[in-house]
Amino acid sequence: MVMDGYRGFLGLLVSALLVGFLSVLFTLIWVLHYREGLGWNGAGPEFNWHPVLMVTGFVYIQGIAIIVYRLPWTWKCSKLLMKSIHAGLNAIAAVLAIISLVAVFDFHNHSKIPNMYSLHSWVGLTAVILYILQLLLGVFIFLLPWAPLSLRALLMPIHVYSGLLIFGAVIATTLMGVTEKLIFALPTKYKLFPPEGIFTNTLGLLILVFGALIFWIVTRPQWKRPKEPNSSLLQPNGGTAEGMEGSMAINVSNMDKSDSELNSEAAARKRNFILDEAGQRSTM
Amino acid sequence: MVMDGYRGFLGLLVSALLVGFLSVLFTLIWVLHYREGLGWNGAGPEFNWHPVLMVTGFVYIQGIAIIVYRLPWTWKCSKLLMKSIHAGLNAIAAVLAIISLVAVFDFHNHSKIPNMYSLHSWVGLTAVILYILQLLLGVFIFLLPWAPLSLRALLMPIHVYSGLLIFGAVIATTLMGVTEKLIFALPTKYKLFPPEGIFTNTLGLLILVFGALIFWIVTRPQWKRPKEPNSSLLQPNGGTAEGMEGSMAINVSNMDKSDSELNSEAAARKRNFILDEAGQRSTM
Repeated sequence: MVMDGYRGFLGLLVSALLVGFLSVLFTLIWVLHYREGLGWNGAGPEFNWHPVLMVTGFVYIQGIAIIVYRLPWTWKCSKLLMKSIHAGLNAIAAVLAIISLVAVFDFHNHSKIPNMYSLHSWVGLTAVILYILQLLLGVFIFLLPWAPLSLRALLMPIHVYSGLLIFGAVIATTLMGVTEKLIFALPTKYKLFPPEGIFTNTLGLLILVFGALIFWIVTRPQWKRPKEPNSSLLQPNGGTAEGMEGSMAINVSNMDKSDSELNSEAAARKRNFILDEAGQRSTM
Repeated sequence: MVMDGYRGFLGLLVSALLVGFLSVLFTLIWVLHYREGLGWNGAGPEFNWHPVLMVTGFVYIQGIAIIVYRLPWTWKCSKLLMKSIHAGLNAIAAVLAIISLVAVFDFHNHSKIPNMYSLHSWVGLTAVILYILQLLLGVFIFLLPWAPLSLRALLMPIHVYSGLLIFGAVIATTLMGVTEKLIFALPTKYKLFPPEGIFTNTLGLLILVFGALIFWIVTRPQWKRPKEPNSSLLQPNGGTAEGMEGSMAINVSNMDKSDSELNSEAAARKRNFILDEAGQRSTM
């Protein structure tokens, strides 16, 4: 049963990594094969950095950053290290998103296209701003050692909720972007099922499936990083590295039959520890 | 503190109902004031039923169906009644979504526009099909009394996850639909910030905010319907009406300071019961 859970996790993780990688690959094929390629010249090739960097950074890397605490072979690492990796991946995603915005604004300005008129741009820019705020808040409240535990406890559920909400909004924005670009690029042909239309619709589906996989992985209570009952010696700065993990967990409560015990919080925690051991063994 | 939590819930509930209502209102104003109005003639007025019915049924009513177990004044009602309301609202949403699909297919066929070429249509039709499957599965597994408790326990986390995933996909699809329609209806004017563009972008934001509010309400552990420790006499068919509730709950674990107790599972349950009483008093 433990190995089942672990295998299930591994299967979903590999699927997520694969589907995310395919999303990046499809975006590259889209701009290199169907569009004008990549460049920094104020024209189409500069615009094309926008989808490439957004799917790479704001979808794929952000998705990995969201589930990084759930990798069981990292459970022996200090919480501080994992927070640094979580923050670092999100920082990389933020930088790529900002470069991606520079590309599209620069393209618009060179091509005399107004900025910020579409719903895609309204939701997308809001998501980037909220993402940067979330990153800064996360670093100052949860990574650096100064914030009191009570403040962390108060803000953690909001941090987790905002993170998933922004991720969902980013995926919705990406799908709007694909829709916009296909209509602009293929004004009469899109409705005739051209290869580019079908290929890029498929890219949209891949991005959606990637989001669904990340959402599943991050909401399983049994795959949550366990608390560290006897590893406080490993923590470089005990008070802050301890405990502040938050997660979206699907709880099924009120089970009173024995076979439903598998879904109980207690059983999930117990499995966490066993999974932890399994995960650590797997890396040794 | 208890009344704080209850007031917070009420505030968010009223906000969600208001923002959802505004979304429906904005959609009506959009099609009646900016577009060709409503009708069933194979032309624009028939298409316009598509956004109206989707936002009304597939966004607003589906959103309410998702949080219906969390209304504290319903916690004295039997679980079976609440399941029937949950299923009933989702069934209404499904019927409206299907009529809405008929409208757009009929419009396309009359106007010689191909069906199912866009990413919007691919994701949207998938969401409708999955929604109907989810509804049928929900009725047969959780509402009708035949399925064994172990099967319910196994499927409930998937039911909750799928429900939220479909809801998120529906909102993403709606935003793609708004994007498509604005580009088609205002091919040269959209980028010049016309009133219709700004108004309909705002509709898109309202729908996104509605989704965010529903997502917050349904993921607070302290607002979850409590298990019924001594109300089994109220259940018309004990075994099935009991307990099978699932929810997405943000858990903040590993708190070892006293003020963080507010976020613990135990405290959340305790507050549930107090909130329950408050909710019941508020309706008497």
